[in-house]
Amino acid sequence: MHTTVGIIGGGPSGLLLARLLHRAGIDSVVLESRDRGYVERRQRAGILEQATVDALRAAGAGSRLDAEGIPHDGIELRYEGRAARIDFPGLTGGRRVWVYAQTEVVKDLVALQLAEGGPLLFGAEVTAVEGADTDRPLVRYTHEGREQTLTCDYVVGCDGFHGVTRNAVPEGERRTYERTYPYSWLGILADAPPVYDELIYAHSERGFALASMRSPSVSRLYLQVPNGTDPADWPDERVWDELDARLSLRADPAWRLKRGTVTQKSVLPMRSSVTEPMRYGRILLAGDAAHIVPPTGAKGLNLAAADVIVLARAFAHLKETGSTELLDTYSDTCLRRVWRAEHFSYFMTTTLHTDPAQSPLDTRLQQSQLDRIATSPHAAAELAENYTGLPLAP
Amino acid sequence: MHTTVGIIGGGPSGLLLARLLHRAGIDSVVLESRDRGYVERRQRAGILEQATVDALRAAGAGSRLDAEGIPHDGIELRYEGRAARIDFPGLTGGRRVWVYAQTEVVKDLVALQLAEGGPLLFGAEVTAVEGADTDRPLVRYTHEGREQTLTCDYVVGCDGFHGVTRNAVPEGERRTYERTYPYSWLGILADAPPVYDELIYAHSERGFALASMRSPSVSRLYLQVPNGTDPADWPDERVWDELDARLSLRADPAWRLKRGTVTQKSVLPMRSSVTEPMRYGRILLAGDAAHIVPPTGAKGLNLAAADVIVLARAFAHLKETGSTELLDTYSDTCLRRVWRAEHFSYFMTTTLHTDPAQSPLDTRLQQSQLDRIATSPHAAAELAENYTGLPLAP
Repeated sequence: MHTTVGIIGGGPSGLLLARLLHRAGIDSVVLESRDRGYVERRQRAGILEQATVDALRAAGAGSRLDAEGIPHDGIELRYEGRAARIDFPGLTGGRRVWVYAQTEVVKDLVALQLAEGGPLLFGAEVTAVEGADTDRPLVRYTHEGREQTLTCDYVVGCDGFHGVTRNAVPEGERRTYERTYPYSWLGILADAPPVYDELIYAHSERGFALASMRSPSVSRLYLQVPNGTDPADWPDERVWDELDARLSLRADPAWRLKRGTVTQKSVLPMRSSVTEPMRYGRILLAGDAAHIVPPTGAKGLNLAAADVIVLARAFAHLKETGSTELLDTYSDTCLRRVWRAEHFSYFMTTTLHTDPAQSPLDTRLQQSQLDRIATSPHAAAELAENYTGLPLAP
Repeated sequence: MHTTVGIIGGGPSGLLLARLLHRAGIDSVVLESRDRGYVERRQRAGILEQATVDALRAAGAGSRLDAEGIPHDGIELRYEGRAARIDFPGLTGGRRVWVYAQTEVVKDLVALQLAEGGPLLFGAEVTAVEGADTDRPLVRYTHEGREQTLTCDYVVGCDGFHGVTRNAVPEGERRTYERTYPYSWLGILADAPPVYDELIYAHSERGFALASMRSPSVSRLYLQVPNGTDPADWPDERVWDELDARLSLRADPAWRLKRGTVTQKSVLPMRSSVTEPMRYGRILLAGDAAHIVPPTGAKGLNLAAADVIVLARAFAHLKETGSTELLDTYSDTCLRRVWRAEHFSYFMTTTLHTDPAQSPLDTRLQQSQLDRIATSPHAAAELAENYTGLPLAP
């Protein structure tokens, strides 16, 4: 089989790229190692920036998002028992974000691609990517028990940090920057209506907490926990009690979350990682294959979407003009925004979490930073601009 | 001897307080353990915020400052071989800073106080401060070989972190927050005209460098060095070569500092510290006795000046109305600004210095932060507002 763009990985970045290419009349094949059910149920992010929403609409995947997505015009910060709202449109000239879960984005894109797109193969396990420095790279994969090959004009790796594609770039040709954080998130999904209609990010000496949502009846809640935490050590009541303690308000001591049935509970590690460059010959890396951010800034999915938007434009430019100019600048175009998002995610993470090694002075510095964001228009706007999303090519 | 306000320490904060009290018709006595020459030669800061300049003028010490002080309307940031200017008036609605060395501030204040103020005793070593919880605290000191006592309505400690006053507050009544940084500054004073008419703060993988000045013919230059560095290991040529390397510009490889005779060379540790509260009974702490900042944000002298401005107003209010209201709120009024300045100094320090333990990712995050300040009006304004000085009572 031959295709113009071989896409390895059928998560949101691979699927969105396939849809954008389809709309531009460029053929592609998507190879996903897992089955459809797994991909559609995988819990990840839930906050979409404007540019991501625009791209989903352009990909034809906007209708359910427009009907069910919940626009958010701000977030609430809690610290020292106080609450401060960050007003996104007021601080950024009208920008907002949407709550629409990654699971739903994936379902919409899968359905579209199966209905009217190029091949999307589930259970297709890629074993090798070869010939990146030739003009016809080759992907080897097994599907339905048989070894197969796919030749491509270009291969795009949307298969994550541990995927085959990133590792197909020789070690001497890439540099990976990494940081792990000394804490994780315990996340729960609960059949409980959110108690507040925006996200609440809470700094507490007990550790960070985040009250988020997936829909008007489903809450998504997180607690900072030590690395290596076993979810079994956190019975539901303990989770709810700890969330209430960390989110508590001095002015409203009776404030509590609404409790409900916990339907999912898991521990997420926190990591920052960037692989440079994002292109090697005819292999291009996108999304988690090129960069990981800790989830505190809600940047992971949006950064992946931004990569494939830039990439789809570059392929369209190649088709229209025969010029590889935009493909040649793909890595540089993306990396400046990637590093900005990496810094913002690091900033949100280290400002809001309690490092087990931090001193009481460090805690006071965090509180002063949060108080500054709550009271200075420039500091608040700096957060709001980064949170709602930066230009694709800054 | 009795006085209304006993001031321990004849550095800039003690002297400025004495002058402001004198102008308000309130008597004070200043006890300084060192001799006049030592105090007047002690090299410290050189950047004055608007509020500090205003206070010096109000204290009658503005004439030489107005003639010889150099207004600065910005700073230059250097990173990755690039230069970006931060325009203070444009970002803050007209605010600027002044270059005028602490040595000169002290000389002006000493001359004034000796000419027309209350007692200013050099070589007066305070041995004890007693009776903070009575209405007549007592200061014991030795002067000209004799033990003396000074009774006061209030005692103000302007005698630094290791001074007697801070330690006169019982340990159970105060809490000290501290952080030491894993690097120091090697500072030189050189008879060389500054090569650029504003300060240059340089981030480099070799470590931080700062090109500052004391006057149009005297440069003040700093290099980040490891803790425990012996200045003897840094002959003049090595210092100049390293400064040039860290300040180098990619677009102008021939750029060099102007070299001259090095007249002073020393190593300064970097520390953050806050003691809370800043009042205990009739003892009040001001300046370094209450808080230390690393010098990167040029906040130390200005924070000390802000304390004594608030304090002088509180004593004037007491004299005029009989109310201790402003003295009672002194600590809270100051501490919010103190923590802001502590955070800003920490931010400038950790963004610009190379921690020996930092990873390549940490370096890239610093560069992304600096690039953001260089290109985002909100991020630049946040730096400019903090650098040029925050309101006395935020």
